[in-house]
Amino acid sequence: MNTTAKASYQRPLDFKRGRIDMNHGAGGRQAAQLIEELFVQALDNPYLRQGNDGALLDIPAGHRLVMATDAHVISPLFFPGGDIGSLSVHGTLNDVAMLGARPLYLSASFVLEEGFALADLQRIVASMAHASREAGVPVVTGDTKVVERGKGDGVYISTTGIGVVPLDCHISGANAKPGDVVLLSGSIGEHGMAVLSQRESLAFGTTLVSDSAALHTLVAAMLAAAPNGAVRTLRDPTRGGLATTLNEITRQSAVGMHLQEDAIAVLPQVAGACELLGLDPLYIANEGKLVAVVDAPHAASVLAAMQAHPLGHAASQIGVVTADPHHFVQMSTRFGGRRVVDWLSGEPLPRIC
Amino acid sequence: MNTTAKASYQRPLDFKRGRIDMNHGAGGRQAAQLIEELFVQALDNPYLRQGNDGALLDIPAGHRLVMATDAHVISPLFFPGGDIGSLSVHGTLNDVAMLGARPLYLSASFVLEEGFALADLQRIVASMAHASREAGVPVVTGDTKVVERGKGDGVYISTTGIGVVPLDCHISGANAKPGDVVLLSGSIGEHGMAVLSQRESLAFGTTLVSDSAALHTLVAAMLAAAPNGAVRTLRDPTRGGLATTLNEITRQSAVGMHLQEDAIAVLPQVAGACELLGLDPLYIANEGKLVAVVDAPHAASVLAAMQAHPLGHAASQIGVVTADPHHFVQMSTRFGGRRVVDWLSGEPLPRIC
Repeated sequence: MNTTAKASYQRPLDFKRGRIDMNHGAGGRQAAQLIEELFVQALDNPYLRQGNDGALLDIPAGHRLVMATDAHVISPLFFPGGDIGSLSVHGTLNDVAMLGARPLYLSASFVLEEGFALADLQRIVASMAHASREAGVPVVTGDTKVVERGKGDGVYISTTGIGVVPLDCHISGANAKPGDVVLLSGSIGEHGMAVLSQRESLAFGTTLVSDSAALHTLVAAMLAAAPNGAVRTLRDPTRGGLATTLNEITRQSAVGMHLQEDAIAVLPQVAGACELLGLDPLYIANEGKLVAVVDAPHAASVLAAMQAHPLGHAASQIGVVTADPHHFVQMSTRFGGRRVVDWLSGEPLPRIC
Repeated sequence: MNTTAKASYQRPLDFKRGRIDMNHGAGGRQAAQLIEELFVQALDNPYLRQGNDGALLDIPAGHRLVMATDAHVISPLFFPGGDIGSLSVHGTLNDVAMLGARPLYLSASFVLEEGFALADLQRIVASMAHASREAGVPVVTGDTKVVERGKGDGVYISTTGIGVVPLDCHISGANAKPGDVVLLSGSIGEHGMAVLSQRESLAFGTTLVSDSAALHTLVAAMLAAAPNGAVRTLRDPTRGGLATTLNEITRQSAVGMHLQEDAIAVLPQVAGACELLGLDPLYIANEGKLVAVVDAPHAASVLAAMQAHPLGHAASQIGVVTADPHHFVQMSTRFGGRRVVDWLSGEPLPRIC
């Protein structure tokens, strides 16, 4: 994002009736105006104001770097509890946080569709700015491209986050060991069902709200509650839901898991909507929840730290890690049975993030 | 990009006849298969193999970090001299290099359109892998989303690069001073005209080839040829062309420039195609060229270092920085006249990068 010094334009952008046109992506004066009057205005910070095609950043010594990236193509762009702007901040910050890192900087690149209303774009960038400030992580550089009408869907946003992690912190999906405890930070399925509820043909008229949130302060509280190494794995169960995330971990760590269905919280409105649509909350996306695998001796103190944090107040122990050459995730059901919880497959829920 | 350990799928991906479907973006088993059998296969490196949603990276001490990002929406996806895969590596590496930084890591996020041929995607990812290896900068993490047919255009790729720069290196578009010399690394307009030539209605049948290339080794050679601070500004004249880039610099540094038209190299086939289409090469995008503003005493040695590098063999001094309260870029023409070189405005060349 070349922000450069302020220049004067013939007239300011019309945020009431204006629309994106191909000129906004052409790299000339109109592109510069869009960047100055919208992006820099909303996301303002000293890094962005450097005005070069990249940002120069400071990082604390004695750390390793974490880098994570996410493309966001959610539809609709606005949903109860957030929009593509706030989601694109939360989603990427959470990927950085899941490696135990403190997120420091974000970049954002926008693919805008010709004809997209500037008012909507302004609302989205404002929401992104709000989420970024709330998290304390600035958007330090970016890029904007425009594609012809019918080659996009309003706006797609790719964000990349970088953060730092102490040299001796090693959190990974590969670290789970038999005997470890599986913790979940709260109830599942809210993001996916809130987005589905917003889609025209599925208007439930309920009070479903996305759980979209930045989890890095929750992670910091958890890591502070146990010695280094006690928290083996952190992961946010987004696309594919809790079931898919746990299967990723069992495969990556070459272990199994045994869950207790009645320990996995599902809000009544999520359960109701899922039943109506024939969906299983275990496969519905979350954007403000995390799964932690913790060694057994420290599970209680990590769980207590989660429950003391606003984003983890409904945290619970949902299962244990087992030795299993098949790397199955098994679950004791509410009715006393036992079933294998498989990966998501078959009909997907498209564009949920 | 969650890469996880290798799993077995019912059948391998069909790279001959297969197409992207919505399942490839749903975060389940098919998404994992696409990542393993295509992305990890082609881009293989130890960071990607960490298998988490982000990558853990080492950085040398005593440096500042540089972060740059670019969305790539070029059309057509394949063009003489490259494709969206190689371009998405070069474009972002160059933005990192223009701050004097040594690029170390890349992330990549893909927005795929339902129905896109896996064969084309494979070719693009292979080209990306080749460009990444050639540059010595691995793609360490990524993400893949799928949108419905008619909501994209094959594939869009956003890349983010991070690099390191010594603490005492301060290269910026804001550093140009009156009396400084403006250097250009080679002939202009090849990328834009090669892409235009590829578009159906503009088949010139010429030998135009994009100049798409990673410029970080050229930058390193230039910086080694002069004391710290002598190279004030580096910038790659992409969208908007040389004219727009120079105007960005004059505005950001609050200076003017005076160019010599006959010092700006344009290949005959670029000049011919531009004349045919009524375009000015000064406004045509480049993807393997850079502009440098250098203090006068060291300009000759920096220019010599450029000319000794394969990507700068046709480098020349094209002008000088002047004091000008209007921040104009002026040019002495071949015919002895003098004109103002303005920003790009009016009809853009869409989706050139």
